[in-house]
Amino acid sequence: MNPNIYPPAMRQLINELSKLPSIGEKSAIRLAYHLITGDTSRAFSLAQAITQASDRTEFCKVCFALTENEICDICSDANRNDGIICVVEKPADIFALERSGGFRGKYHVLHGLWSPLRGVKPEDLKLEQLFERIQALSKSKTEYNGLQELIIATSTTVEGDATALFIANKAKQQFQIRVSRIAQGLPQGGELEYADELTISHAIEGRRIVDDHHKVI
Amino acid sequence: MNPNIYPPAMRQLINELSKLPSIGEKSAIRLAYHLITGDTSRAFSLAQAITQASDRTEFCKVCFALTENEICDICSDANRNDGIICVVEKPADIFALERSGGFRGKYHVLHGLWSPLRGVKPEDLKLEQLFERIQALSKSKTEYNGLQELIIATSTTVEGDATALFIANKAKQQFQIRVSRIAQGLPQGGELEYADELTISHAIEGRRIVDDHHKVI
Repeated sequence: MNPNIYPPAMRQLINELSKLPSIGEKSAIRLAYHLITGDTSRAFSLAQAITQASDRTEFCKVCFALTENEICDICSDANRNDGIICVVEKPADIFALERSGGFRGKYHVLHGLWSPLRGVKPEDLKLEQLFERIQALSKSKTEYNGLQELIIATSTTVEGDATALFIANKAKQQFQIRVSRIAQGLPQGGELEYADELTISHAIEGRRIVDDHHKVI
Repeated sequence: MNPNIYPPAMRQLINELSKLPSIGEKSAIRLAYHLITGDTSRAFSLAQAITQASDRTEFCKVCFALTENEICDICSDANRNDGIICVVEKPADIFALERSGGFRGKYHVLHGLWSPLRGVKPEDLKLEQLFERIQALSKSKTEYNGLQELIIATSTTVEGDATALFIANKAKQQFQIRVSRIAQGLPQGGELEYADELTISHAIEGRRIVDDHHKVI
């Protein structure tokens, strides 16, 4: 491409947009063109939204999720169970779990997964903070009798599994608490015929009894 | 989606990003997450690039392409042929033509196509300005003897064809100049087997003689 065909500020914008994930050069050009020829006030709104979101959003001091306050809304929600902590890799995972609406405990964000191949060590994750949290909860008997369960909801990848095992071992040794891992199996709507071998073997391993009322227990 | 799971400024950013073309809610969330958790200076660079590009870029007073000056680089380029004007629908079309490198004349951007269905009338396009330009060029005999040719490079759609015909009729009546339309046919790498009927019939209509040296003339 001859970059001189675009005016300088447009070239700069295309360059910045191309750095975004899953935005290639063609998409960047289309977006830049849209922003420049469209309503100026809308371009300004977007620029302002980027600045403000980047400026105001920080990590929660307790769970390291995204928040605009010292402590995030979930951590400071008295209606949520303090006794269950769900460990995730990144803030986006909390949003995914919250969308499902199936969890009413608290979270802890690791900000990464243990990956020797990529040079990520356990010390690089928010693990020390997790164990300090567990320690504090084990001492102070809250409404829910300290920590009841640690749910590890890292991805079902090699790194996710390794991180889960690392946390589970350490947590069980130090605190004698219950540690669980989210279930692996067929996704909703998944067809056995097209599922990979590992998913099927996990689905069979993790099978659950169906009771007389045809309910899975 | 429960929008309350995102901090307010992030929610606002997701909302603004979703307004961009071909960015759905999921992409907007992923981009917002990337901008917030990534390097703050990069988010600021993007915001600044949007503001500046939107601020500084205007339409060229002559051809209505995008520029940061009164007159765009192409219009003020003395090495380009003033005697050939290529008429396009939108500034992005100029970028596409310039990338191909096959044209060394000047441009004129209509900023739309005649479309009775969408309520776009010929008066809504930069047509009056085009005819004024042709008039001026016809009077002042430049290096290239005024206007030699008007190439209409609108899309090969119903609207594009209607607009081309409208311009061609008016230009030929008023100025007795040569008016051409870009060729329609099989695209590079196109297979006859999979081409639609209209493309094939245009390709046959527009066939060109191959000379003794096997060159298309």
